[in-house]
Amino acid sequence: MSLKGKDILSAFDFEREDLERLFKLADQLRTEISERGVLDYAKGKIMLTAFFEPSTRTKLSFQFAMEKLGGRVINFDVSTSSVLKGESDVDTMKILDGYDPDVIVIRQKIPFFPHRVKDIVKAPIINAGDGPNEHPTQALLDLYTIWRELGKIDGLKIGIMGDLKYGRTPSSLSYMLTRFNNVTIYYIAPEQIQIRDEILEKIEGKVKYVKVGRPEDVIEELDVLYVTRLQKERFSNPEEYERLKGAYKIDKEFLSKFKHIPIIMHPLPRVWELDPSVDELPQAKYFEQARNGMFARAALIKEVLGI
Amino acid sequence: MSLKGKDILSAFDFEREDLERLFKLADQLRTEISERGVLDYAKGKIMLTAFFEPSTRTKLSFQFAMEKLGGRVINFDVSTSSVLKGESDVDTMKILDGYDPDVIVIRQKIPFFPHRVKDIVKAPIINAGDGPNEHPTQALLDLYTIWRELGKIDGLKIGIMGDLKYGRTPSSLSYMLTRFNNVTIYYIAPEQIQIRDEILEKIEGKVKYVKVGRPEDVIEELDVLYVTRLQKERFSNPEEYERLKGAYKIDKEFLSKFKHIPIIMHPLPRVWELDPSVDELPQAKYFEQARNGMFARAALIKEVLGI
Amino acid sequence: MSLKGKDILSAFDFEREDLERLFKLADQLRTEISERGVLDYAKGKIMLTAFFEPSTRTKLSFQFAMEKLGGRVINFDVSTSSVLKGESDVDTMKILDGYDPDVIVIRQKIPFFPHRVKDIVKAPIINAGDGPNEHPTQALLDLYTIWRELGKIDGLKIGIMGDLKYGRTPSSLSYMLTRFNNVTIYYIAPEQIQIRDEILEKIEGKVKYVKVGRPEDVIEELDVLYVTRLQKERFSNPEEYERLKGAYKIDKEFLSKFKHIPIIMHPLPRVWELDPSVDELPQAKYFEQARNGMFARAALIKEVLGI
Repeated sequence: MSLKGKDILSAFDFEREDLERLFKLADQLRTEISERGVLDYAKGKIMLTAFFEPSTRTKLSFQFAMEKLGGRVINFDVSTSSVLKGESDVDTMKILDGYDPDVIVIRQKIPFFPHRVKDIVKAPIINAGDGPNEHPTQALLDLYTIWRELGKIDGLKIGIMGDLKYGRTPSSLSYMLTRFNNVTIYYIAPEQIQIRDEILEKIEGKVKYVKVGRPEDVIEELDVLYVTRLQKERFSNPEEYERLKGAYKIDKEFLSKFKHIPIIMHPLPRVWELDPSVDELPQAKYFEQARNGMFARAALIKEVLGI
Repeated sequence: MSLKGKDILSAFDFEREDLERLFKLADQLRTEISERGVLDYAKGKIMLTAFFEPSTRTKLSFQFAMEKLGGRVINFDVSTSSVLKGESDVDTMKILDGYDPDVIVIRQKIPFFPHRVKDIVKAPIINAGDGPNEHPTQALLDLYTIWRELGKIDGLKIGIMGDLKYGRTPSSLSYMLTRFNNVTIYYIAPEQIQIRDEILEKIEGKVKYVKVGRPEDVIEELDVLYVTRLQKERFSNPEEYERLKGAYKIDKEFLSKFKHIPIIMHPLPRVWELDPSVDELPQAKYFEQARNGMFARAALIKEVLGI
Repeated sequence: MSLKGKDILSAFDFEREDLERLFKLADQLRTEISERGVLDYAKGKIMLTAFFEPSTRTKLSFQFAMEKLGGRVINFDVSTSSVLKGESDVDTMKILDGYDPDVIVIRQKIPFFPHRVKDIVKAPIINAGDGPNEHPTQALLDLYTIWRELGKIDGLKIGIMGDLKYGRTPSSLSYMLTRFNNVTIYYIAPEQIQIRDEILEKIEGKVKYVKVGRPEDVIEELDVLYVTRLQKERFSNPEEYERLKGAYKIDKEFLSKFKHIPIIMHPLPRVWELDPSVDELPQAKYFEQARNGMFARAALIKEVLGI
């Protein structure tokens, strides 16, 4: 079994056995890279990053993953592109694919854009975020982190907090959690930015979930607290946003009120919702999580390239 | 015979024998790349792209060409440069050349800029577009495409349509066509954006040409219809532009009126002048043309580097 | 002795013996590169450039240095980063360091930023300019240039002219000159942009210095005239700036008034303060100086990587 030549558009594109195999492969690559530096699995292979909107961590994480595998990276960034002249993004993808990259990593503002071009484009595509829809490799590194930290995913209670309505991280993470047994997701958010029904419909019957208003309602139940940003622009009423900030900020003082503190994750970048005072706690795993992204993506690229 | 160490500033820098040799070399590299992936001709060589104005296809096409040859690419882009601080572009070129790149690909807004710096700079220069003046490697890939599709260039009838006055594609293509025998160029454009006299003077007596008002006047005569954009900003009167749009739009319905349809080319990006409905026709060669750019440029780089 | 694994934050991080060893290594690499092209000392090593403000020469100079050593470069540029989303630069550094680059080159607007993150970050850091504070590798290439041109640094008389108050080049250059014997620095500037006291405090007793108002007061004494820009935005009164321009412009006519002309250096980019008419003089060394930057930085990277 392998993902050789497959397009990775959704968290649902991974079966449980794919995930377990990729987690082990990521651990193996971690060891090999630490012992030998740059490897040569991807020698002579070219990855194209086609980023139609900017992103630091995701692009650099893919770039480091490919370079550590020994491959080459060519970056297409929209800011220097003739998209400004009005060219359609689909034409751009056709042209880029004509240059025969071995794999294309796409970031787009438009939801389902990778799905739209997958049959037009010969190279395997990895979706690195399509608007508010999905971000499957973020979910891959999230679960890889949980698997490394807690040794398993089955049976865990995972709280996802913040902007659940518009975030692509909560959706992909939820979808990927359906591949495991007896998982419970707690969606922690004020009602106006709670998880969308269309996401719930896709996970219905495959994972347990509970909507919760405040983190203190469940924190002691949780194995994992996954914090995401609360974006000001999502609120029609700015006063409402200011009023809610206090209730959705995780800092050391807040955590000190509880007997049990779950491991704390965040897709980063963080703003005010996750205070630097938390960084010193042993439960703070978000920088390790970012680092895991390189290994998880290296494992995925290695499989997709069939190398 | 070879172009080793030569500056490529104009389409006139290629003799007929250079072109025929490069077309065959491009075909050979296409085969080698498809069989072996990244080659190693350019191992240990560095190409610098010095882009003083943004361009997607051209830069990425050169970048893929060099990477597929096994070389390395370093990009200088004006948007992140101290040109903003007022440094002259000539100083910039001197500094960049001091870093000993093996070849420099220049894109500039200023016409004849590459000509101005060629004797200051040690590395061979490839002109990747100098304002409205020339774009010789675009012409190279254009003729390589025609040569592949129709098996020859001698004796062909080629219509070039759109903004002929300010475009650098029509000029370089016209100049390069003078290297072949018995070619006829039809310049298809409204009078105010017809081909400039200074271009005609350079091809006078070397190639036949006819100015034509509308595509329907010659389409059945043509072996090739080369469509370019009609830019709104070229018209002093916006209403004139809107009035003309209809007459210079190529779509499937328009083409269905003719018994014979020539092969259709476009330097891309396209806007409204070439409708996506044409994409499905067997005569649509523009995406293949973009792809050919990678092989034509790889051939040119290989010769200029003498590898 | 070597700088293996060390952070290079200040010109003071180099002892005299480090500098002399690096100058010789730079000369050796110059020879090897000219004979063999890309070397393989840094094969399998990755340099990350983390540029939180744009810079052409510095970034490209480091990039060419690393590529010529046979290493790989990954660029992080703030303009395409989520710093825009409010992420702190310290978080960014932690995340980037988690990707295990072998060395990180940092450019920052914030003074002492590299010092702030050096203990957070595992990889060795090279300061490529931290606001108005320092630019130690600029000083390294400056002294390498003087050492090559004049065969020694001990005993020289060096005039530094222009914006001495806010420039990071004058400070690092002054600090590095303290490592040599019997050097005299002439600070040539109008009073309102003369060298800051905090810089003088650091060199007090280690190097002789004299503040001078005009270049003509000392030019015949000098072995080196180091010109820097006079930035308009430094003057509260624009008329004052315009009035001063004439007195701080070096051109061929001005130099023709003196019997002895020192070698002329400039960190580039230049604007009006160093006229192109000077370029033809044998004393003009600024383009050679920029080129020396590649070799000096290659030597430093080689030592820091311990390769």
